[in-house]
Amino acid sequence: MSEAKESSAPDSVQEHLQEINALLEKQRLVEGLVHKQEMPRHELVESLVHKQHLAELQKKLDSLHSADIAYILEALPRDQRLAVWDLVKADRDGEILLEVSEPVRESLIAYMEPAELVAAAETLDADELADLAPDLPDDVMQDVFRALSVEEREQLRAAMSYAEGSVGALMDFDLVTIRDDVALEVVLRYLRRLDELPDHTDQIFVVGRNERLRGVLPVNTLLVNDPERTVAEVMKTDMLVLTPADKAAEAAQAFERYDLVTAPVVDERGRLVGRVSVDAVLDYVREAAENERLNLGGLREEEDIFSSVWASARNRWPWLAVNLVTAFVASRVIGVFEGSIERLVALAALMPIVAGIGGNSGNQTITMIVRSLALGQISQSSARALLRKEIVIALLNGVVWGGIIGVFAMLLYRSVPLGLVMTAAMTLNLLVAALFGVFIPMLMYKLGRDPAVGSSVLITAITDSGGFFIFLGLATLFLI
Amino acid sequence: MSEAKESSAPDSVQEHLQEINALLEKQRLVEGLVHKQEMPRHELVESLVHKQHLAELQKKLDSLHSADIAYILEALPRDQRLAVWDLVKADRDGEILLEVSEPVRESLIAYMEPAELVAAAETLDADELADLAPDLPDDVMQDVFRALSVEEREQLRAAMSYAEGSVGALMDFDLVTIRDDVALEVVLRYLRRLDELPDHTDQIFVVGRNERLRGVLPVNTLLVNDPERTVAEVMKTDMLVLTPADKAAEAAQAFERYDLVTAPVVDERGRLVGRVSVDAVLDYVREAAENERLNLGGLREEEDIFSSVWASARNRWPWLAVNLVTAFVASRVIGVFEGSIERLVALAALMPIVAGIGGNSGNQTITMIVRSLALGQISQSSARALLRKEIVIALLNGVVWGGIIGVFAMLLYRSVPLGLVMTAAMTLNLLVAALFGVFIPMLMYKLGRDPAVGSSVLITAITDSGGFFIFLGLATLFLI
Repeated sequence: MSEAKESSAPDSVQEHLQEINALLEKQRLVEGLVHKQEMPRHELVESLVHKQHLAELQKKLDSLHSADIAYILEALPRDQRLAVWDLVKADRDGEILLEVSEPVRESLIAYMEPAELVAAAETLDADELADLAPDLPDDVMQDVFRALSVEEREQLRAAMSYAEGSVGALMDFDLVTIRDDVALEVVLRYLRRLDELPDHTDQIFVVGRNERLRGVLPVNTLLVNDPERTVAEVMKTDMLVLTPADKAAEAAQAFERYDLVTAPVVDERGRLVGRVSVDAVLDYVREAAENERLNLGGLREEEDIFSSVWASARNRWPWLAVNLVTAFVASRVIGVFEGSIERLVALAALMPIVAGIGGNSGNQTITMIVRSLALGQISQSSARALLRKEIVIALLNGVVWGGIIGVFAMLLYRSVPLGLVMTAAMTLNLLVAALFGVFIPMLMYKLGRDPAVGSSVLITAITDSGGFFIFLGLATLFLI
Repeated sequence: MSEAKESSAPDSVQEHLQEINALLEKQRLVEGLVHKQEMPRHELVESLVHKQHLAELQKKLDSLHSADIAYILEALPRDQRLAVWDLVKADRDGEILLEVSEPVRESLIAYMEPAELVAAAETLDADELADLAPDLPDDVMQDVFRALSVEEREQLRAAMSYAEGSVGALMDFDLVTIRDDVALEVVLRYLRRLDELPDHTDQIFVVGRNERLRGVLPVNTLLVNDPERTVAEVMKTDMLVLTPADKAAEAAQAFERYDLVTAPVVDERGRLVGRVSVDAVLDYVREAAENERLNLGGLREEEDIFSSVWASARNRWPWLAVNLVTAFVASRVIGVFEGSIERLVALAALMPIVAGIGGNSGNQTITMIVRSLALGQISQSSARALLRKEIVIALLNGVVWGGIIGVFAMLLYRSVPLGLVMTAAMTLNLLVAALFGVFIPMLMYKLGRDPAVGSSVLITAITDSGGFFIFLGLATLFLI
């Protein structure tokens, strides 16, 4: 009998990483010595020491969960990453490639021989293979495809046909099915004949003729009920049922709302074709949040922190280019008023405040609207109420914050009219921010585009150029 | 035998919402008629119709999952929300209060009588009660506490003592435990005696004397093994074990990494005190992502879209105030150079470009660093490599984008020196962005603060003021 040991407490992955870094360090020192040494008899000794370190490293890696190795690969610079990758047992390559992030996966795949890739891919299930396929060279995929059974080919073809962001892309094919006319006793015996159940088997799918889904038998129900009862008597029929075309985001919300572990997926004829399990949902939720975060931060996609300067630059240039264009536009708006600025240079110092606070306030409105849209909480009638509310808040903020700034400008430049223009410009720009803060995401939503992407850049562009135009325009009318 | 029916396909919640809105609309029309009608005999008829609509609405609500009702409450304006809330069966109040967002919860609690609140709270488990407690009035909590058993009081006290963001705050007390010296047969018989198993029971906890955790018996293992075997023979001992003080974020990463459904939580003496299940983790991940998103958007916390103007304004003012201060500082930096701008007004039009692109680039760097820090992928040695890389990218961007802008400025204002100053200023500000983009989150991390909060505002403030200073300073030195 063994004491419960903590295989991987939350922070121990980082300890593993430190240990592996130390081992790599030792090995590098030895390699350095080997290279420097001239005397051949020493070489032998050092190469032995070298081998010993490698063996130690390999042993350490063998003891780790694939997900932990993936984590460690992410955190290592390129050369060390490949050194560790060489030591990983080939039969785990497939699993680990699935776990690492896109850019790291690309770096590993680029380094592997086609034969290694085929071997790695062949260890995976059809749904996993579908995730990996886009990154594999064509000839590798052809070899893999040839090695599959007819059923697996069908599954792979199906899994690859579903769009990213659909339930089809999340689902797996690890199904345990039973008929509803048998006794629980029989189910228990049937399960016992299996070597193991698929991960996350919290319910067994009950199917009728033609694999049509009739209900589910939760494992917990199976365990607490009298074995004499039949499946039909105790099965659940009011379960959540997904279809491959459903949106992954909505399925994720359903998992969260109803606290699910798995859900069956059926085709248009009601036949069971797969299941979605909570681990895929958790990965999806995390990834969706991360992508949104990256987009807001102005990155095109996930970045391998050790990728080349060139790869990083390409990841960042699209948003920089967009911002450059909006900055150019704002600059030209100011250019129109150069005459006014020449006459009253205080305008140059004050104008960024109007633009900045407008952008800030617009982003607040957009954040709230995007969130409510994502949750499906905005209807036609509530949209009008929302817009009204945002306008009132803009007016309130205009009076309060615009007033503060107006007084500040008045005191600093000893001009009451300048202060009044400042307050009026702030209020107007906050109104612009409120209007477009509601309109932009609603319009994108209606056009079927993701309102989370680009809304922020757009509103900032509008409140920048708009803020400069309103402030300098009012100043030109009333002060010059 | 019943056909599998879809209780709640992903989009059907929205259909429920529409249906309820339609019912509310009908009811409102009737109420309007009742108010307008003068003739008493009509009143009776209409009040009957009114009652009928209410009954229909109530029936509809009774058929819905608590989480769906919570969703619908979120999407309804205040008066309709309270009308629906009145119709919800009292024994579901507790569950629903747990599901709704903070601001909606506050609005419902403010509307309920103390006795109703006590009744609602008494339907909850200790861990759920702990989540609700901060929002309940003191006298209600006292009444609830008095009604608890000694064990529940202990659990509630424990659950409330754990900091937000710790495993203790995520865990529940729904434990099924067994000894390791019994046969699986006995375990099966023991389980059958229970009415039902806790949700998400994917493993049964194996404890020794003093409730010390010895291992876990996955339900799947229980099902596929010979009932004659003992628990000790088949139990898993290399499972993930958490402690209440572990960080929730790290536990969530572990759930994601190892695809877990539940994990045991032990105290410092190795005694089983609770468990964390994946539904709590999924909620946590979603909430953490949402909070970060709100913070980035400049909102203090989640906002009820139907909250009062005043509540919304309070949610938005802290960040607006911070931004006002940074905008003031930037404005004063420009103020220093008013003399230069007066002489060369083109500076006023060009300066926002330098500041804007710097802010954009700094936010890209920060987004990447914050993400890597959150994943624990940055070590002492990799930090130096990262900084080097960011500096090279900044120089590259300075040459490319700074060059483009320089040419633009040169052509527009027919001045080669102005173009050169523009390029130089851009490059320098991008370097500032890279340096602080790495330093700010690293420093916050070292100080034990969340680098995701505030980093973006700080870097923007630095690249704004810094950009104005660098550009106007260089222009003053070389052009004026």
